Amino acid sequence: MAGNSFGNLFKLTSFGESHGEALGGIIDGCPSGIAIDFDFIQQELKRRKPGQSKIVTQRKEADEVKFYSGIFKGRTTGTPIGFVIKNTNQKSKDYDHIKDVYRPSHADFTYDEKYENRDYRGGGRSSARETVCRVVAGAIAKLFLKNIKITAYTSSVGNIQLRKDDQIDYKEIEQNVVRCPNAEVASKMETLITSVKKEGDSLGGIISCVIENVPTGLGEPVFDKLHANLGKAMLSINAVKGFEYGSGFEGTKLRGSVHNDIFDTHKKTKTNYSGGIQGGISNGMPIYFKVAFKPVATIIQKQNTINTKGEEIEMQGKGRHDPCVVPRAVPIVEAMAALVLADFILLQRRFNSTQ
Amino acid sequence: MAGNSFGNLFKLTSFGESHGEALGGIIDGCPSGIAIDFDFIQQELKRRKPGQSKIVTQRKEADEVKFYSGIFKGRTTGTPIGFVIKNTNQKSKDYDHIKDVYRPSHADFTYDEKYENRDYRGGGRSSARETVCRVVAGAIAKLFLKNIKITAYTSSVGNIQLRKDDQIDYKEIEQNVVRCPNAEVASKMETLITSVKKEGDSLGGIISCVIENVPTGLGEPVFDKLHANLGKAMLSINAVKGFEYGSGFEGTKLRGSVHNDIFDTHKKTKTNYSGGIQGGISNGMPIYFKVAFKPVATIIQKQNTINTKGEEIEMQGKGRHDPCVVPRAVPIVEAMAALVLADFILLQRRFNSTQ
Amino acid sequence: MAGNSFGNLFKLTSFGESHGEALGGIIDGCPSGIAIDFDFIQQELKRRKPGQSKIVTQRKEADEVKFYSGIFKGRTTGTPIGFVIKNTNQKSKDYDHIKDVYRPSHADFTYDEKYENRDYRGGGRSSARETVCRVVAGAIAKLFLKNIKITAYTSSVGNIQLRKDDQIDYKEIEQNVVRCPNAEVASKMETLITSVKKEGDSLGGIISCVIENVPTGLGEPVFDKLHANLGKAMLSINAVKGFEYGSGFEGTKLRGSVHNDIFDTHKKTKTNYSGGIQGGISNGMPIYFKVAFKPVATIIQKQNTINTKGEEIEMQGKGRHDPCVVPRAVPIVEAMAALVLADFILLQRRFNSTQ
Amino acid sequence: MAGNSFGNLFKLTSFGESHGEALGGIIDGCPSGIAIDFDFIQQELKRRKPGQSKIVTQRKEADEVKFYSGIFKGRTTGTPIGFVIKNTNQKSKDYDHIKDVYRPSHADFTYDEKYENRDYRGGGRSSARETVCRVVAGAIAKLFLKNIKITAYTSSVGNIQLRKDDQIDYKEIEQNVVRCPNAEVASKMETLITSVKKEGDSLGGIISCVIENVPTGLGEPVFDKLHANLGKAMLSINAVKGFEYGSGFEGTKLRGSVHNDIFDTHKKTKTNYSGGIQGGISNGMPIYFKVAFKPVATIIQKQNTINTKGEEIEMQGKGRHDPCVVPRAVPIVEAMAALVLADFILLQRRFNSTQ
Repeated sequence: MAGNSFGNLFKLTSFGESHGEALGGIIDGCPSGIAIDFDFIQQELKRRKPGQSKIVTQRKEADEVKFYSGIFKGRTTGTPIGFVIKNTNQKSKDYDHIKDVYRPSHADFTYDEKYENRDYRGGGRSSARETVCRVVAGAIAKLFLKNIKITAYTSSVGNIQLRKDDQIDYKEIEQNVVRCPNAEVASKMETLITSVKKEGDSLGGIISCVIENVPTGLGEPVFDKLHANLGKAMLSINAVKGFEYGSGFEGTKLRGSVHNDIFDTHKKTKTNYSGGIQGGISNGMPIYFKVAFKPVATIIQKQNTINTKGEEIEMQGKGRHDPCVVPRAVPIVEAMAALVLADFILLQRRFNSTQ
Repeated sequence: MAGNSFGNLFKLTSFGESHGEALGGIIDGCPSGIAIDFDFIQQELKRRKPGQSKIVTQRKEADEVKFYSGIFKGRTTGTPIGFVIKNTNQKSKDYDHIKDVYRPSHADFTYDEKYENRDYRGGGRSSARETVCRVVAGAIAKLFLKNIKITAYTSSVGNIQLRKDDQIDYKEIEQNVVRCPNAEVASKMETLITSVKKEGDSLGGIISCVIENVPTGLGEPVFDKLHANLGKAMLSINAVKGFEYGSGFEGTKLRGSVHNDIFDTHKKTKTNYSGGIQGGISNGMPIYFKVAFKPVATIIQKQNTINTKGEEIEMQGKGRHDPCVVPRAVPIVEAMAALVLADFILLQRRFNSTQ
Repeated sequence: MAGNSFGNLFKLTSFGESHGEALGGIIDGCPSGIAIDFDFIQQELKRRKPGQSKIVTQRKEADEVKFYSGIFKGRTTGTPIGFVIKNTNQKSKDYDHIKDVYRPSHADFTYDEKYENRDYRGGGRSSARETVCRVVAGAIAKLFLKNIKITAYTSSVGNIQLRKDDQIDYKEIEQNVVRCPNAEVASKMETLITSVKKEGDSLGGIISCVIENVPTGLGEPVFDKLHANLGKAMLSINAVKGFEYGSGFEGTKLRGSVHNDIFDTHKKTKTNYSGGIQGGISNGMPIYFKVAFKPVATIIQKQNTINTKGEEIEMQGKGRHDPCVVPRAVPIVEAMAALVLADFILLQRRFNSTQ
Repeated sequence: MAGNSFGNLFKLTSFGESHGEALGGIIDGCPSGIAIDFDFIQQELKRRKPGQSKIVTQRKEADEVKFYSGIFKGRTTGTPIGFVIKNTNQKSKDYDHIKDVYRPSHADFTYDEKYENRDYRGGGRSSARETVCRVVAGAIAKLFLKNIKITAYTSSVGNIQLRKDDQIDYKEIEQNVVRCPNAEVASKMETLITSVKKEGDSLGGIISCVIENVPTGLGEPVFDKLHANLGKAMLSINAVKGFEYGSGFEGTKLRGSVHNDIFDTHKKTKTNYSGGIQGGISNGMPIYFKVAFKPVATIIQKQNTINTKGEEIEMQGKGRHDPCVVPRAVPIVEAMAALVLADFILLQRRFNSTQ
C-alpha cells in the first residue's frame, strides 16, 4: 500500500536510499526447491552496475548481494528471502549543494511535498539506485521461470533508432556497451552518448523486450491483465514515460482486417500484432513491448531553479551521473518482466487441481 | 488477486458477462458523506452507452444502474456501495455461430486455455460491456474528487490526428459523436468511421486525457508511482495497446537540457514535459497522458480462423458492433483516471495527523 | 482495506444493510468447473434463515439468492460470481424509535463516531443480516472443498453446556432447533431459550466446529497461520467474543510432557491437543475450535441509555429479535471455515508445479 | 500472501530463520516525521531477549538491531525502514540430532509437508525467534501511537492464576521475571517455572493486555473488525491457542440484561463487557483481551516420535529452551497490538478531509 512492494504471490518488497548504509529487500512467495545460482545473480547485478563502461556513471559500487534467509543447502525453502546490498562508495558530500535545492525534473520537490523529512542525498529513495533490489529479485524470478526467455535490448538512444530493416542478433546485446542487438547501430549510439556526455547533457531512449516460451493462460482479467501488470512494472522504473505492447501506438492506424491475428491449426497466430496477449491473457506467442525513458534529469550544466524557500537560484550539476540510463536499464526491464511472469505463473497454478 | 478489483482504499470490484442477466459491482472505501447525484451518474453512463450515435454499436441497452446499499438519505455512508445494471437487450443467439469458434484477436482462445468453462456469448467476461461498471464507479469517484477536473477526448482515429496546431476547445468534446475537441477534425474522423463501417472494417485510435487541479503529493513511490497506476488503469481497458504520459515516447528524442522542467518561484514549472508527475508523485501541474486503442477485432467480413478443435474454418462477423471504440471509451478513460486519483487521495490522507 | 472483503485467492466481498433493498456480494477467485448445486445453497440459507423455529427471530425473509454471473451451464467459469438477496420483509418503521438513540452494546454509537452518516434502520451495515452473504459464499466454498467435512454445532447456551461425557451424534444436529448434537442437552437448551425469551432477555453461548479430511500443508506461516485466519474469520462474525482451537485456554494448564502430540508411524498423532495444526499448518488431523458468542444486545426490556445528543433516556426494545444467536450462527461458522480453507487450498496449489 | 507480512497501511514484512545468519524486516508505511528513540527500541528487545533471567532460555543473543533506511536525522522519512538483527550465538550442531526427526507438537512435519526443503536447525522459520522482528516493528508503532498505552502482563502460568481479587499494579510488571503485576503471585509463578524446568518439563500460561486512551472509530467492519485483527495478530504468535476480548468465553453465561454496557452522558459506558469495541469499532473505553499459550513443545525428557521416514524412534530434547514462553511473550503481545492499532489509525485518517 505504501508502494514498496511489487507482486502478489511472488512479491518483492524493497528498502534503501541512494546514500544510506545499505539497500535490500525481501522476496516473499518464491516456491521452495529452486536452485540458487549465486554467480548468475551477481552477473545480473554486474549488467546494471555503475562503472561498467565509459558511458555510464563512474560511481564505483561493489553491488555485492548478501542473502540472509530463505535459502538452505543451495535451494529456496519457500520462506522469505532477505537480502542486503551495502553502499560502499556513497559520497554524501557530493550532494551537500542540493540540500536546499529543488533540482529540475527530479523528485526533490514532490518528496518534500509528500513527506517533509527527506533524505536529500543523491535523491534518497527516489534514486534509481533502488533498482539494484529489483535486479536481485528478478534474477531469482528468472531462475524460477527456467525456460521462459526474456530478452531486453536498447532499440533507440535519442534520435538513433534500430529500424525495422536492421538486423537483430541477440548475441550482440552484451557485446557492446549500449546493449543494442546490432553492432553498427550500437556504435552510433555509443558515439552519440559519448558526445552528449562531453557537453554535460543527457539523452533518453527506448528499450524493447521480447519474452519467448510463455505458457498460455497467464494474466488475470479484467483489471490485472498481463499487459496491464507489465505496463505498471515498466512504468514504475525510474525515468520511464511510456509503455506499448504488440502493435502499440502505431497499431492504432491499422484497419481491423489487417490487424487481426489469424490462427493457424496449431493454435498459433500467423501475425502477432496482439503481442502474445489476447484479452489480457497470454496466448503462447512471443510477448513484446517497448519502454520509453526520458533524458536523464541530472546534467552537468548550469540551470536555473529554485531552493526550498521558493527563491530562484542557479545550480550546476555535479557528481557522477549517467548521460543515458538506457544501457543500464536493460537488465532492470528484464527483472521486472520476470517478476510479473513469476507472479502470474504462481497465480495460474491455483487451477492445477492435483491437490 | 483474481483480477476483478481495482484500487486499494477506494476499490471497485466488478462482476458480470456481456450476455448474462446483469453486471454490477461493489465500491468499497468511498468515504461517507459524499452527496450522490444520480442524474450525473446516469449521464456518465449515457456517454458510454451503445446506440448513442450512428457510428457506434446499435445494441440497445437501457444501462440503468440500481444502487442497493451504501447510500442513505442521498449521501454515502462509508459502507460498500452495491450496484447492478441489468442486461435488457442481450440476444444470445447472435452468438451461437461463435460457440465453437476462436475469433481472431479476441479472447475466446485464451479464456478457453485459462478457464475451460467459458461463457462464449458475446465475449462473456472479456467483453468491453464490463466497463459499464467502471463508469458507475468512476462517476462516484468524480463526485468525491470535486474540483479535480478530468477531461478525456479523442485525439486520433486511424490516420486522422488532432495535430499540435489544431485548436482545442473542451466544450466541443460532447458536441460531436467522436468526442474530439475540434469540430473540423471531428468531422473528418466521423466521415472516416462511417466509411470504414460500411466496408465492415474497423479502426483504432488514441484518447488523450488532461487532469487539472491535482494536489501535490499523490502517488506512492517506488512501485505505485502515480503514472504507473494510471498506466495500469488504462492498459486494463479493453483494446488498449499503449500508454504514455508527459513527453512520452517523443520525449526520448530530446536532450536533458531541453526536457528539464524549470521551476518558477510559485513552485510551478515553466514547461511540463514531466506531465505533472515527478518521481511518481504529483507536482501540482496538469497531468496529461495518451492511450492507444487497437482497431476493433470484430469486423463484418469473412475471415479465416479455427474452431475449438483446431480446424481451419471461415467465419463471418455478425451482430451489432462498434467500428471504432474510441468515442465510447472516452468516459471510460476518465472513469479509470478518477478511480486512480480517488485511491491516492485517500492514501495520502494517512499523513493528515489531525486524528 | 475498507473491511468488506474476506480471503485472498478465494475472496468474498459483500454489501448491504439490514433494511436496504438488498444485500449481495461478489465471490472472486472460485476456480472454473465447479458444479453449482443451487438447492444446496438455498438449503444452507434456510439453516440461517429467520423464522425457522419458535426460538429465533420471527422476521420473515425469503432469503432467496439470485446469481447474476460467473456460472454458465451449471458450472463456475472462473469469473466473479455476483449475487443478490432481496430484503422482502424489512419494516423500517420498527426502527424509527432508535433513530436518535445509542442502544447499549450495539454499534450505533461507534458507527456514528466513525462514519457520521449512518443507516440506523435495524443496525444497517452492523446488523448480522450481512452474514446471509457469507452463507452463500460459504456454500460455494463447500462445493469446492468436496470431501473436506465441516461440522459446527451448539455446545453451550448460557449455563447449559455439552460436557465431555455427553454423547455426540452429528446426525442429531439438524434434528433440533438449537443445533446441539445431543438430544437431551438440546432439549434443555431449548427450554432455557424459551424461558429467557419470555422474560424479554437474551443469552449467549458457544459453537464448536470440527473439520475432517483436511489435507496437510494448509496455512501460511508466519502471520497467516491457519488458525490465525480461522480465528479472524470467526471473530468477524457478529457477537463473537472469543476463539480457541485445539487445547485452547484449558491447555494452558497442562505440562508439555502431557500436551505434546506423539506421532504414530502413519504420521498421525495419538492425541490431538494441537487441533490439527502445527506451526500454523494443517497436519492432517481433525481441526477443532470453539467460538464464544455474547448474549444478544437487543432485549425486550426497559433500559437506560443516551440519545445522540448525549442525554440520558429510557428505551424499550421492540421488533423481532433472536433471544440467542447461537442456533442460527452454526451455518455461519461453517461458512467462514469453508472460506478460510478454500483460500488456503488455492494458495497451496502454487506449489503444484505441473504447469 | 505468502504469510510474512502483517498490516496494510502500517506493514511489517519479516524474514529470517532461527539459525540463519540474520533476521530482519521492512516496515512500510510508517508516516514521516516520527522521532526514533533507538534506546527505547533496544529496551523493548531486551524485554524479549533470551538469557534475561534464570527462568528463560540461556541462549545468548545480543539482539542488536541495525537500521539501514527510512530514518534520516533521527526521524522517519516515510520510506521503508529496513532492519537486520544478526544471529550471534546460533549453535547449529545443537540441532543435528533433529535433522531427520519430527519432534512432537513442533512444525517439523508440517513444514516438510508444505515446503519439502526445510531448514531444520532450531525450527528454522517456525521458531519463535522470528518474533524479534515483531518487537522492533512494534516499538516503532508504539512511538507512532504516542499516548495510546498498551500494557500486557502474565496473568496465569500453568495452574497459578492472577485472580479477580488479586491487586494489580502495572509498575510491578517489569519488577519480576515472570512479568506479573502482583509480586506475590509472580513469586508463585516463578517457583513453579523453576520447579518444572528442573523436571525438564514445560508450562503454558495466559497473557492479559489492556489498551488505554484509544480514540473512537478504529476498526473496519465487517470483516476487519478491530477485535478480529487483534485476534489474528495474537493467534499468529508462536504457541498461541486462544484469544478472547471483553467478557470473552465467560460472558457467554451472562444474560443480555446484565451484559449490556449502559452509556453515561459522557458517551462512556458504565460497565465494559464490550472490551472497548462495539460492532468491531473502538468506542473509547479501554480495550482488554487475553491470549492463551500452550506449554512449550520442547521438553528435556525422552519422548517417542518418528523420523522423516515414518519410523518410530526415541528422542531426547537438548539445547537451551524456555520452560514457559509467557514471560518473554509479554512484549510480543504488546508489539502486535501496537501494529494493529497503528494500521487502523492510518486507515481511519482517510476520513480526515483536510486535504
